[in-house]
Amino acid sequence: MRHAVVKHPFEWDRNLFTLLKARRRQQRATVEKKWRCAGNAEDLEQLDTFHRAIRPYLCLAQVFGMMPLTNVLSRSPHLVKFQLRSCGTCFSLIFLLLGGLKTMRLATKLFQGGLNAKSMISVVLFTSGIVICVNFISLARGWSRLIVPWTGIDIIMLFPPYETMKYSLRRKLLITGCSMGCLTLLEHWLYYASSYSNFRIQIVHCQPNITQIPFKGYMMKEFADIFEMVPYNSIFIFYAFFLNGTFTFICNFMDTFIILISVGLSQRFQQMANRVLNAVKRYVPDAEWHEIRMHHILLCELMDLVEVNMSNIVLISCLSNIYFICNKLLTIFTKLHYPINYAYFWYSLLYLLGRTCAVFMCASKIHEASLLPLRALSTVPSNCWTEEVQRFNHQLGSQYIGLSGLGLFHLTRRSFFGMITTLVYYEFMLLQLDAKSNKDDLANSCV
Amino acid sequence: MRHAVVKHPFEWDRNLFTLLKARRRQQRATVEKKWRCAGNAEDLEQLDTFHRAIRPYLCLAQVFGMMPLTNVLSRSPHLVKFQLRSCGTCFSLIFLLLGGLKTMRLATKLFQGGLNAKSMISVVLFTSGIVICVNFISLARGWSRLIVPWTGIDIIMLFPPYETMKYSLRRKLLITGCSMGCLTLLEHWLYYASSYSNFRIQIVHCQPNITQIPFKGYMMKEFADIFEMVPYNSIFIFYAFFLNGTFTFICNFMDTFIILISVGLSQRFQQMANRVLNAVKRYVPDAEWHEIRMHHILLCELMDLVEVNMSNIVLISCLSNIYFICNKLLTIFTKLHYPINYAYFWYSLLYLLGRTCAVFMCASKIHEASLLPLRALSTVPSNCWTEEVQRFNHQLGSQYIGLSGLGLFHLTRRSFFGMITTLVYYEFMLLQLDAKSNKDDLANSCV
Amino acid sequence: MRHAVVKHPFEWDRNLFTLLKARRRQQRATVEKKWRCAGNAEDLEQLDTFHRAIRPYLCLAQVFGMMPLTNVLSRSPHLVKFQLRSCGTCFSLIFLLLGGLKTMRLATKLFQGGLNAKSMISVVLFTSGIVICVNFISLARGWSRLIVPWTGIDIIMLFPPYETMKYSLRRKLLITGCSMGCLTLLEHWLYYASSYSNFRIQIVHCQPNITQIPFKGYMMKEFADIFEMVPYNSIFIFYAFFLNGTFTFICNFMDTFIILISVGLSQRFQQMANRVLNAVKRYVPDAEWHEIRMHHILLCELMDLVEVNMSNIVLISCLSNIYFICNKLLTIFTKLHYPINYAYFWYSLLYLLGRTCAVFMCASKIHEASLLPLRALSTVPSNCWTEEVQRFNHQLGSQYIGLSGLGLFHLTRRSFFGMITTLVYYEFMLLQLDAKSNKDDLANSCV
Amino acid sequence: MRHAVVKHPFEWDRNLFTLLKARRRQQRATVEKKWRCAGNAEDLEQLDTFHRAIRPYLCLAQVFGMMPLTNVLSRSPHLVKFQLRSCGTCFSLIFLLLGGLKTMRLATKLFQGGLNAKSMISVVLFTSGIVICVNFISLARGWSRLIVPWTGIDIIMLFPPYETMKYSLRRKLLITGCSMGCLTLLEHWLYYASSYSNFRIQIVHCQPNITQIPFKGYMMKEFADIFEMVPYNSIFIFYAFFLNGTFTFICNFMDTFIILISVGLSQRFQQMANRVLNAVKRYVPDAEWHEIRMHHILLCELMDLVEVNMSNIVLISCLSNIYFICNKLLTIFTKLHYPINYAYFWYSLLYLLGRTCAVFMCASKIHEASLLPLRALSTVPSNCWTEEVQRFNHQLGSQYIGLSGLGLFHLTRRSFFGMITTLVYYEFMLLQLDAKSNKDDLANSCV
Repeated sequence: MRHAVVKHPFEWDRNLFTLLKARRRQQRATVEKKWRCAGNAEDLEQLDTFHRAIRPYLCLAQVFGMMPLTNVLSRSPHLVKFQLRSCGTCFSLIFLLLGGLKTMRLATKLFQGGLNAKSMISVVLFTSGIVICVNFISLARGWSRLIVPWTGIDIIMLFPPYETMKYSLRRKLLITGCSMGCLTLLEHWLYYASSYSNFRIQIVHCQPNITQIPFKGYMMKEFADIFEMVPYNSIFIFYAFFLNGTFTFICNFMDTFIILISVGLSQRFQQMANRVLNAVKRYVPDAEWHEIRMHHILLCELMDLVEVNMSNIVLISCLSNIYFICNKLLTIFTKLHYPINYAYFWYSLLYLLGRTCAVFMCASKIHEASLLPLRALSTVPSNCWTEEVQRFNHQLGSQYIGLSGLGLFHLTRRSFFGMITTLVYYEFMLLQLDAKSNKDDLANSCV
Repeated sequence: MRHAVVKHPFEWDRNLFTLLKARRRQQRATVEKKWRCAGNAEDLEQLDTFHRAIRPYLCLAQVFGMMPLTNVLSRSPHLVKFQLRSCGTCFSLIFLLLGGLKTMRLATKLFQGGLNAKSMISVVLFTSGIVICVNFISLARGWSRLIVPWTGIDIIMLFPPYETMKYSLRRKLLITGCSMGCLTLLEHWLYYASSYSNFRIQIVHCQPNITQIPFKGYMMKEFADIFEMVPYNSIFIFYAFFLNGTFTFICNFMDTFIILISVGLSQRFQQMANRVLNAVKRYVPDAEWHEIRMHHILLCELMDLVEVNMSNIVLISCLSNIYFICNKLLTIFTKLHYPINYAYFWYSLLYLLGRTCAVFMCASKIHEASLLPLRALSTVPSNCWTEEVQRFNHQLGSQYIGLSGLGLFHLTRRSFFGMITTLVYYEFMLLQLDAKSNKDDLANSCV
Repeated sequence: MRHAVVKHPFEWDRNLFTLLKARRRQQRATVEKKWRCAGNAEDLEQLDTFHRAIRPYLCLAQVFGMMPLTNVLSRSPHLVKFQLRSCGTCFSLIFLLLGGLKTMRLATKLFQGGLNAKSMISVVLFTSGIVICVNFISLARGWSRLIVPWTGIDIIMLFPPYETMKYSLRRKLLITGCSMGCLTLLEHWLYYASSYSNFRIQIVHCQPNITQIPFKGYMMKEFADIFEMVPYNSIFIFYAFFLNGTFTFICNFMDTFIILISVGLSQRFQQMANRVLNAVKRYVPDAEWHEIRMHHILLCELMDLVEVNMSNIVLISCLSNIYFICNKLLTIFTKLHYPINYAYFWYSLLYLLGRTCAVFMCASKIHEASLLPLRALSTVPSNCWTEEVQRFNHQLGSQYIGLSGLGLFHLTRRSFFGMITTLVYYEFMLLQLDAKSNKDDLANSCV
Repeated sequence: MRHAVVKHPFEWDRNLFTLLKARRRQQRATVEKKWRCAGNAEDLEQLDTFHRAIRPYLCLAQVFGMMPLTNVLSRSPHLVKFQLRSCGTCFSLIFLLLGGLKTMRLATKLFQGGLNAKSMISVVLFTSGIVICVNFISLARGWSRLIVPWTGIDIIMLFPPYETMKYSLRRKLLITGCSMGCLTLLEHWLYYASSYSNFRIQIVHCQPNITQIPFKGYMMKEFADIFEMVPYNSIFIFYAFFLNGTFTFICNFMDTFIILISVGLSQRFQQMANRVLNAVKRYVPDAEWHEIRMHHILLCELMDLVEVNMSNIVLISCLSNIYFICNKLLTIFTKLHYPINYAYFWYSLLYLLGRTCAVFMCASKIHEASLLPLRALSTVPSNCWTEEVQRFNHQLGSQYIGLSGLGLFHLTRRSFFGMITTLVYYEFMLLQLDAKSNKDDLANSCV
């Protein structure tokens, strides 16, 4: 029951001066600290800003040539900038060049040798890798325009009256990123294991007198496109593994990045909701409601900024995920030879589905957190129901807040359900066609 | 016409004191009774609470190891709690163990003998049974956090000014539950009848000299997975029947439970709508509108609580229903041998469709009932149109109230229509493929 | 420009007394006339009420046993009632009996002779005919509860300040009904022409020495199910034609009835919108806005009443239309023999599509007309923007107004587009399967 | 931060008189200029009106008989009218006649020679061309009712306080139109190149002793329907090319026209949003908010006018685009002979997709621009939050603003995504059927 939350006015008046004094003193201290933070990178480092939490990932992305930023490890977000003449940009260009070469080589082979599933998927993988890379470079160009206001909001929301969350942003992002990384590495290792196992079986079958399986042979087959051009030595083996690994990493990094951004944003909306929840329980002057509303507008503007910079990446992420899932679903009825093949196939399918699901769930959390204050506001007592509160109430419900794929679809639970429904329906159709096809084959073979 | 609903103010003033006195006396009596109820389980038993109405079903669920609660028959909802070291939990664990064993055995057979429709459906049935069971145990853990606030709202809404409904909640739930139970039993009996009939025919065809159909043989075939491991005796026959019956019961119980919860919630929203309907016809002070609005918020919070605890069960229910319906639809063109087979097939298909329809219809009633006060509020006369009423009006339309499947879809008539449309479309496609397949078969057989 | 619509207050005040006097006199006259109308059927007859306009259709429906009402031609809507012991009910029962007999006979033949398209569609036609009939009888039972409030609203809205529409309701309904009737008759005639043509060709091919095509033979074939039971004479020929005609009529009548109801409702919403449009151009006292709002609530309540009574009929109408369209689409690639066959096939397909389209378009007009005052209200000048207007504005946008199919879908242009999209997609799939099938046939025939 | 946007009232008061004087003088000047513009076509020509920008396209459309308007080059929009007895109407009629003749001839050939993809698509192209033409003539009839109010709004929005956009409307429309035109010409040229290349190959294969490819032969084959009726001479060659070119042009013009209209409308909504954005930063009297709101209503009414006149054209555009895309997708697996064929096929498919995408994107810009002021309004300071602003805020979110296809669907990014999803899904199904078909063919060929 919320009937008696507003204290008796007289009781409240008694301690008015003392209370107001204390509050003013506190506010002044907070404002001072905020100003110090904004100017001083040392103090900023103490705070659980998004900049501090995302930094390791930016660093990692730079190694793979995805986000060519200077001073990426700097404590001040102002210094993290895109510079055309920098080591990172150089790295990115070399990377795009090598990727482009490999893609062209694969494409040439595809057109020469005719379309088949395996070469097709490689071309798509490498092409989408380059597209993603270019989009991330474009994101890097606008990164400082994004992270500076974000840090501004972080500085506001990391001091009272905003409560700190149970787990720090840094910890959340670390756990999310590491678990995603481990799962990716396992998937990549399983791919090689499955592929090597296939190669070994083939050798044993074809040349039964060979006792030792040559590693070089496997390399020659797996990276045929490379070793047809360059001599076989350890540098190029490393190069081949590196290039393959990097492009697998890019796709995974893209999804991880969307998840990290979503976690960062939803944490802030969650904090906003908590503050509103606390506010409705006590008497809140109009000025504070105004402040809350202004902070909410700031958050919405940050959301818009993220949306403008990220919506193309979100679209590419969803499209590539759906393509790879469909591709896996197409071969779901193919008989495989060995348990390791099954393990790889099912693990990678489930991992893909899980990753897509995680992207949608984390992104939809933003929208859900943004709607949380709505219920709380309805319990604001009548004498506090001022125009400010009314405007805040109206503002909360008026526009959609959340990530979208270039405005074509919103990342919500409902759109995820729609996507999954379509995929399942498609799979059922395939199943049916396959069953009929098998029956036809039987009929034909009987003839 | 609603023009003259507000009496002339003078006429109203005349009996003011008398009226107010009587009302105050009445209110005091009600509040006292409410307090007595909240403290005293005897008085609570007199009321038509949801706790009293759902009790028999909780009891039944406990027998099948689904809701391990202590004091399930207690009159006070405070005493119904989940305890780790209790008879119920023990029961649940044994149950999960036996179910798990059977599932693993069926899964092993499935992998050994190759995929076929009959064994596949058994594995899905038993797996989903275990998943449902685990979810219900998790619901049981949060049951006391759910039923205590619910009873609190029940105590509020079972006294004037809320009207009692025509039929008591207990009676509604009893009729709903019993009819669902009977239909389930009939379906289960038809399954055995159809299966036994098939067995008899097979025996008659293969061994024409046998005059008496051996019951043991049927048992051996029907419960092959059990009697391959244990000797054939009456205890294990009972065990086999019990396990099969229980897992069939679980699926049905899940749907019935969602329906019961929906009936309970929609009754309260209906009462709320009735009170608003009565309120708009007479002069209502602002304080009463405030009370109505606060009660509505309480109801919405209860709805949220139910949603948090039940949405996973709703999702599983819908998915399993759709799977079983699709499975039936796949074999709709298969020629069956005897009328009993047809009777079982069509009865079970219609029963499945009817059950799914009932779940959606009952759940959508909550949403529909929650919107009922909206129209009534528009007839509130202008002099009574205070800020409280305005806020109530706004509050009613601002958020979706109703059950959902983990937020992926809402249980409304429209989503039900969408689901049915997809199923019908799928069936039409199957029909078309089947017709073509038959034509091809004819063509092939002519060759 | 709408800047100068409010006259200068002084200018307005000058003629105040004269104006108010005249208006009061006029209002009193209108109210008197309204009261006279409500009591006197003679005066009511002069008005363009919906009752007067729908009367001929009710009469027609009674002849075919669909709406067993007494005093259907009466001028007073109070007298049009459902009576269990009346000629109409008797008619309906006989009708249902005959229809039921024919349906059972057709169903028996279907099960005996195996499923084929032609007998299947007859069974569906007759079954749906009976279902429609039962639903219309249930509508007839509630007809007086529907038409009396409707006439009440008609009486209000047929006097100033409501403007009369350009075309009277009676004329609109007459034109709509007659054109629908003619198209139906043409379709029915084409059916017999096509069927008789087929019969003649068959005779000519099989028995080339016969010079005269026997009419009796055609009757025997067309109405095989009847003339196997009863002797061939003119009474039973009439009976056969009558029964066939009636059931074709029922489906068409259902759609026509929905269209007529929609036209009637949308006319009233249109009048409401016109009044609001006129109101925003001049100074309107708050009391008048209150009156407008109350009339709007009355209209919405009438809409709810229609929705409760008609939504099952709307659902059946849509389902049967979709079934018959799909059925036609399935045979779209079948080679037909003669131009008359093509004429019948394409005419009946286009007629079906057109009828379905008309139902959706007319029904969606209600919703569109109900939203019309929204734009007008935004031009209400600030000094007239009272709470009443605000509430009216809010009320207009808060709930969906329009017909629905049991709440499963709304009859809007968008849902019509969704339906058509699904049908076209389905047809494309069929086309593709058919093309492939033809190719396979060619391949097989080459073998 | 927006905390300090409202100046201190005293500071503001000091310059009040001077400021108000200057503003009044400026306003008077603007109003005078506006009045002069409305009356004087010379002054109007100086302004960047939509009429001036669309004029060249109307002129072009008139040449191809699509928009029979008189005085199409006139500077005053009042003079651009549809006249029954004019050169343009005559032109249109001749054009429709010739088109109708060709269509009937193609249709006759289609029915005689049996349905095949190539002749089918020609018939659809010419039929849709005629339908589009008729719809454009109907648009021309209502053009003056559309362009006069549009110019009225243009005159309002081309003076301060509205800011001019970076690029003038004329320039935008010129660039859009020219680029669309060039792409269309390239597509048309590629069509002839591909078709001629096919013809040459065929000649070379069939008659290897011919050294020179006869142009006449190609003409005879390409325009068989024309040269079967008329003798082969340069006039009829021109006529054949002209007719073909025109009907290709019509489809493209329709899409271009929708894009141009959308650009024009979204520019105005963008200006409105800019004005609101500027208004929230300073103190704005209520009268100015009223003016803004009235201008917004004017814009919405213009939008409605455009919607009424254009929605049928939008529907036809979308339907024909989808048909041609589907048609291309159907033949995506067909093996083509020469690079030029591939170039034409892929260029025309991508061009079609791009054009459809452009139509949806440009049209959705209107809706997006209309929602822009919503966020800005939430930052209006509390002391300026008057009823006018509140009504404006409510007005912005209450109704959908944008183009639709006869109300059946809205041109938004989401509906575009839905359309593309369906197409991709359909293509995947085709792919699957094709793969299976190939397998069957292999199986059959092995037999």
